[in-house]
Amino acid sequence: MSAASAPHRLLVRDLAQVATPAGTDAPLRGSALGQTEVIEDAYVLCEDGRIGAVGRMRDLERLDGDVDELDGRGKSAIPGLVDCHTHACFAGDRVDEFAMRARGASYEELHAAGGGILSTVRATRAADEEGLREAVRRHLGWMRRSGSTTVEAKSGYGLDRETELASLRAIRSEGAVPTWLGAHGVPPESDDADAYLDFALAEVLPEAARLAEAADIFLERGAFDAGQARRYLDACRDAGLALRLHGDQFTESGAIPLAIELGARSVDHLETTGEGGVSALAGSDVVGVLLPASALFLGRPMPPARALIDAGAGVALATDFNPGSAFCESLPLVCSLAATQLRMGVEEALAACTVNAAHVLGRAERKGRIAVGYDADLVLLDASDWRYLAYHLGGEIVAETIVGGHRG
Amino acid sequence: MSAASAPHRLLVRDLAQVATPAGTDAPLRGSALGQTEVIEDAYVLCEDGRIGAVGRMRDLERLDGDVDELDGRGKSAIPGLVDCHTHACFAGDRVDEFAMRARGASYEELHAAGGGILSTVRATRAADEEGLREAVRRHLGWMRRSGSTTVEAKSGYGLDRETELASLRAIRSEGAVPTWLGAHGVPPESDDADAYLDFALAEVLPEAARLAEAADIFLERGAFDAGQARRYLDACRDAGLALRLHGDQFTESGAIPLAIELGARSVDHLETTGEGGVSALAGSDVVGVLLPASALFLGRPMPPARALIDAGAGVALATDFNPGSAFCESLPLVCSLAATQLRMGVEEALAACTVNAAHVLGRAERKGRIAVGYDADLVLLDASDWRYLAYHLGGEIVAETIVGGHRG
Repeated sequence: MSAASAPHRLLVRDLAQVATPAGTDAPLRGSALGQTEVIEDAYVLCEDGRIGAVGRMRDLERLDGDVDELDGRGKSAIPGLVDCHTHACFAGDRVDEFAMRARGASYEELHAAGGGILSTVRATRAADEEGLREAVRRHLGWMRRSGSTTVEAKSGYGLDRETELASLRAIRSEGAVPTWLGAHGVPPESDDADAYLDFALAEVLPEAARLAEAADIFLERGAFDAGQARRYLDACRDAGLALRLHGDQFTESGAIPLAIELGARSVDHLETTGEGGVSALAGSDVVGVLLPASALFLGRPMPPARALIDAGAGVALATDFNPGSAFCESLPLVCSLAATQLRMGVEEALAACTVNAAHVLGRAERKGRIAVGYDADLVLLDASDWRYLAYHLGGEIVAETIVGGHRG
Repeated sequence: MSAASAPHRLLVRDLAQVATPAGTDAPLRGSALGQTEVIEDAYVLCEDGRIGAVGRMRDLERLDGDVDELDGRGKSAIPGLVDCHTHACFAGDRVDEFAMRARGASYEELHAAGGGILSTVRATRAADEEGLREAVRRHLGWMRRSGSTTVEAKSGYGLDRETELASLRAIRSEGAVPTWLGAHGVPPESDDADAYLDFALAEVLPEAARLAEAADIFLERGAFDAGQARRYLDACRDAGLALRLHGDQFTESGAIPLAIELGARSVDHLETTGEGGVSALAGSDVVGVLLPASALFLGRPMPPARALIDAGAGVALATDFNPGSAFCESLPLVCSLAATQLRMGVEEALAACTVNAAHVLGRAERKGRIAVGYDADLVLLDASDWRYLAYHLGGEIVAETIVGGHRG
């Protein structure tokens, strides 16, 4: 869309490298996942929020009119990172539980003992909507500093009408992509899972469907079973929401077949997925969202990333940022974990947290690549080789983020 | 040492918490390792580079004369972190090797193929001394931002007289604690390990002993065996150096018995240490330095931290910062790994990278605690609970560092 006034332009020049997932498909699978296009001694021209041109400095044509310039010497540019799985809307923390687990208690033990998700539900219900907005803003600020320019955020720490809807409003108002995780757990005041789902679908879904883009459920022993998940997701789909599932985190409970049957966008976690699940996912259009920071945080096995990719499944990487099982907002750290723990190439990791994550959020036509026409969301890395994204483990690798052509 | 002029004073006030390893011993062992003293609503008064007072705000007495003040609201203070094992003096990087390993090549395969340490030796020899100083300065800057205020740095990427001595001078001039790792590997121009050690001990040690505080050796299949290590370390001890050993990283090759026999300060790595090694170390004064970022980076097993601590061994944590096997300068991330991968309590992790690490560097009387008379080296964490140090995985947790009573 062209404006009558002069367009805003930002030229990022003299970059050591520009690196982007190649091609135009989404999600990238198999060998295409590892195809990264790298331009050395490069520029990126942002025009009115989109990428207007990208290429080698020697091919840069003279620009007339006003252009802001940004010196990229010694830096490399990658697409703004896309975090497609976070629980960024919560109050309080779970540092006590973390310290207990470090001394030996298991996640399921802590959950059974009344810690776990429900302790965050108590804190989140006690916050008001402005408090939730502040929390989301703080967390998104951390993510932005780590290079994430598009972030999904789920509700799910309310589990009552008021707090679930306040969470979705807070997420929307802070610019994140809202997912209604109305079935994150059964709240303490409810008799059982089915009764809670009756309530949630009757009383919360109608308004949640106007606020959220997708629905999600925690399909796991102790939370919701496959039959309950089918009922919840069917209703959410009928209300116009895209579908996501938490599945195979602690037990294989049927999430992958259900995700495929319902045409879900993704099934997320997969730490316990076996060969059958790998094959099924590879034969479908459902993306497997891998969350290695969560597996690390809980001291759990890593998901079978290599098997999934080699079988041809679409995979994405995300942080799972949340206070209990992954207090980690850093996609660069997730890329380091992918390269060291998931046997993913650095190029595969980049595609998994850019274009493939954008696909999970229904945004792959505009997000996740540095190519003409895409949104001008960039991360400038403080390294002349873009692969420091994964190589510099725990380092402050992000020099600057650019969102919609504006410095961040 | 008191000056004639008024002392420089810095008051850090209204801190949510001050947390420090308890007691006065070093190294801390067994249950003492997990004893952290926490003061809520606290202040720390720094006077002429030392800690002059620490306590609760309500007990703060009126201060006459000039005092700089720092608002600690919402923050917690821990001792400046001590990184007792780094290879911070090198040129170049190993990002190509990292990317190859991510796609499946093993560390030993890359080493055997002419990558590994020797590729960094080539790059480091090609740098001049000013280039090495700049590299050390850049790396120490990264470490300081991550909260490390005392850092050991090893030579070992020269393996010739000129570059080894230039490395030690660069390390000293930038304020790190220098260790001569003259036996990091056998250089390409040498016929064999014994011939190289003959050269190093005759031609490099006399000057290295004037520049370094300790000597270190890589005792490992493919590098140096126990007999060679004994000869090298005996000579270094005779020249006045404290002793360190890299041991049990890939194979148990006798490092622990040798370290005990020679009275070494530490034996570092221990990823492959078995029950016998654990028992032996626990019965000795040698500290086990654990490097979980290295194990993570290489996708290797973690060292048996819990067994060592429970058996009564002294343990420290360090980054192992180096370009090949741990491109990671972050002790906060190491603490997260300790809590999630090593089954160490957060309190144990804190002691292991403060007072116990200071002991390995012969500095435990001045470094590693927030207590009257200790050096005024502090880290202010961007959290009101100090345990976010380990809990906030990959987060930008360090708000500010204070070194010798001066803001960073």
